[in-house]
Amino acid sequence: MTVNTPHDVHGAVQPAATDARTARAALTRLMEPSDLPGMALVRAAGPVEALALIRSAASSSATMEREMTAILAASGVPRWPGLADALTRWRPRLADLAPERDLAMIHRLGGGLVIPEDAAWPAALADLELAEPLALWMRGTTPVIPGQQRCIAVVGSRDSTSYGANVTGEMAAGLVQRGFTVVSGGAYGIDAQAHRGALSAAQAGVVPTIAVMAGGLDRYYPSGNEDLLRTIAAGGVMVAEVPPGTNPTRYRFLQRNRLIAAFCAVTVVVEARWRSGSLSTAHHADALSRSVGAVPGSVYSANSAGCHRLLREGSAVCVTDAADVAELAGAPGTNVTAEVEGPPAVHDGLSVEDLLLLDALPLRSATTVEKLCTVAGLGAVAVLAGLGRLELLGLAQRSNGAWKRAD
Amino acid sequence: MTVNTPHDVHGAVQPAATDARTARAALTRLMEPSDLPGMALVRAAGPVEALALIRSAASSSATMEREMTAILAASGVPRWPGLADALTRWRPRLADLAPERDLAMIHRLGGGLVIPEDAAWPAALADLELAEPLALWMRGTTPVIPGQQRCIAVVGSRDSTSYGANVTGEMAAGLVQRGFTVVSGGAYGIDAQAHRGALSAAQAGVVPTIAVMAGGLDRYYPSGNEDLLRTIAAGGVMVAEVPPGTNPTRYRFLQRNRLIAAFCAVTVVVEARWRSGSLSTAHHADALSRSVGAVPGSVYSANSAGCHRLLREGSAVCVTDAADVAELAGAPGTNVTAEVEGPPAVHDGLSVEDLLLLDALPLRSATTVEKLCTVAGLGAVAVLAGLGRLELLGLAQRSNGAWKRAD
Repeated sequence: MTVNTPHDVHGAVQPAATDARTARAALTRLMEPSDLPGMALVRAAGPVEALALIRSAASSSATMEREMTAILAASGVPRWPGLADALTRWRPRLADLAPERDLAMIHRLGGGLVIPEDAAWPAALADLELAEPLALWMRGTTPVIPGQQRCIAVVGSRDSTSYGANVTGEMAAGLVQRGFTVVSGGAYGIDAQAHRGALSAAQAGVVPTIAVMAGGLDRYYPSGNEDLLRTIAAGGVMVAEVPPGTNPTRYRFLQRNRLIAAFCAVTVVVEARWRSGSLSTAHHADALSRSVGAVPGSVYSANSAGCHRLLREGSAVCVTDAADVAELAGAPGTNVTAEVEGPPAVHDGLSVEDLLLLDALPLRSATTVEKLCTVAGLGAVAVLAGLGRLELLGLAQRSNGAWKRAD
Repeated sequence: MTVNTPHDVHGAVQPAATDARTARAALTRLMEPSDLPGMALVRAAGPVEALALIRSAASSSATMEREMTAILAASGVPRWPGLADALTRWRPRLADLAPERDLAMIHRLGGGLVIPEDAAWPAALADLELAEPLALWMRGTTPVIPGQQRCIAVVGSRDSTSYGANVTGEMAAGLVQRGFTVVSGGAYGIDAQAHRGALSAAQAGVVPTIAVMAGGLDRYYPSGNEDLLRTIAAGGVMVAEVPPGTNPTRYRFLQRNRLIAAFCAVTVVVEARWRSGSLSTAHHADALSRSVGAVPGSVYSANSAGCHRLLREGSAVCVTDAADVAELAGAPGTNVTAEVEGPPAVHDGLSVEDLLLLDALPLRSATTVEKLCTVAGLGAVAVLAGLGRLELLGLAQRSNGAWKRAD
């Protein structure tokens, strides 16, 4: 691998796309997700050069730190705090880098590595700024992430209730029927139900579901979801920012949540305890100015306490079904009010006077206009005009000059 | 009854408090709630004079209309539209006025008529502006409405579910335990449960509950709540703006809702269908700049659809128990977060580096610092310092220079 000088790095990427891909493959193993000094260095120097610099730094770190600081400065990035620490952090992993092996592995799994230099790179990830992933390891028949406006995250507790599972399954299926892609984390409970519901409604031309994994895509984690994840790899998309062979750790789970939020226009939390990883996804979505929806549930269910917390804090909008979520995503032609609203009551739209009159009309024996004036508290003109209107509406009927409520 | 000239009406009220009370008693029979031309007239002329004017207008309405318009103009009220209509409206009822009889009736029931001239008049009603009631017919051992900051409305569907009934009963009892008065409408379902829950927690010095009725206080409506309403009349307060003998009509129910909202700092809707009278109470509360709370429930329950609608539209705050409601009422010392939050997880508050390190520590066989550097992606200094911190926190343990997760 050649070490480019900083000035021609960007020019070198186009002819050396393979080098950029290989370098980024290596960098995803070297750096943890959101390792900000590393991201800054890759942005400033380009992936090939950044990797080469880190390799050289293994032998003479003081010199290399100065050189990297100069590169960052030349790109307008002020001196990055913790660059020396970062070098110390990366050095032990240099010996384990084997990007060609990792790329071969992902190809064998029918997938590939998508990098920011590709046209297929999801534009939505730019909102993560410096925490934008170095690359995306992907599996799937059509390993493409649809645009943010077509992606909805549906997430929640691992120990979901049957209530949460039902709501999730119906919501996910309804979203795919509306042309959305359901994004989740491949975990037990709500995540699994979101993927299943989406797959159940699969249709041509729509990626039904995307599982964003915290570990490498060569394994199915958790193992109890192996069949489901296999189905997703075949009929949907699996994606991770860490290379094959990487364990899912708590840190990587938390970082994975920011990716779910970033891919999607809306993040829906179906069930979450008061403290729940799903809330971290919601907070990421909020920080990225994405919409957040929360599904209400019983106040006695600990699995809804996190959702109610989001609603109470004003961090989420109340959503009860796919139509509500679609509306939150700004989908045209979906109006929840029109869908749910029942037939209007017969007295809707009556004036106050006609309502008073309708109240005053007896149900059984008919009464006189004079009596109606007293009971309704209306003048004779208002009563006579009102009776005419109510008769037209089929609400009043007369017999022998007296009036009663229509049967 | 003497007809005062407009100029000395206000001066005349103090020595003639009995006259004002009698006049207002009569006016509550003459005018429907929120009969705005009537309210404007009573404000401008005072109750005694207003009643006298209307009586005179029965014979010569054209003259009287001019005189009333002049009175209104002198009080800075512009020519009131519909004054002639209003006279026509009131005239048929003049013959039925019997304020002394109505006052005797309410006294026989152990109650009384509270008027704006009384010190006990609820100050909160001023927010209704021109729709402020003419007077309040009240029953109860201590027929007093506590200040708005101590009153919470708890309302909802008549056909409540057992879920709604449970939430309501617990919430109402919890509010009374916190010193609040629970205000509701005396109806079946949520209203009844709110009154019952409040009565069950009754304690000295707190009016547990107030039933705001749409009809006269001489009857118990609905009849199935007779026992409950009797208990409220004994241990709480019943109040209405219409005199004894008045039927509860749809119009009066809707107007009654504005009173419930006006009395209270917070209106909580526990269960409500998509179209529900309880929503009108919530909208009144909103219009009066009172807080509105809505209790979440199953998305499959039609009885929660109205609550979810309020939450979704941002018209209500999500409340799940009495503590949430008390917080909404601005009660000091109630912090829902502190109450619900469980014990913090052991890894809360760890730095990102220590979290990476904790993730990297094996559960069973201990490992070396070098290996931890690679797995965690951290430098040796960070690993050593971090291991020290994790050991102090009881999260890491060492044996023979190697490290593992503490048992």
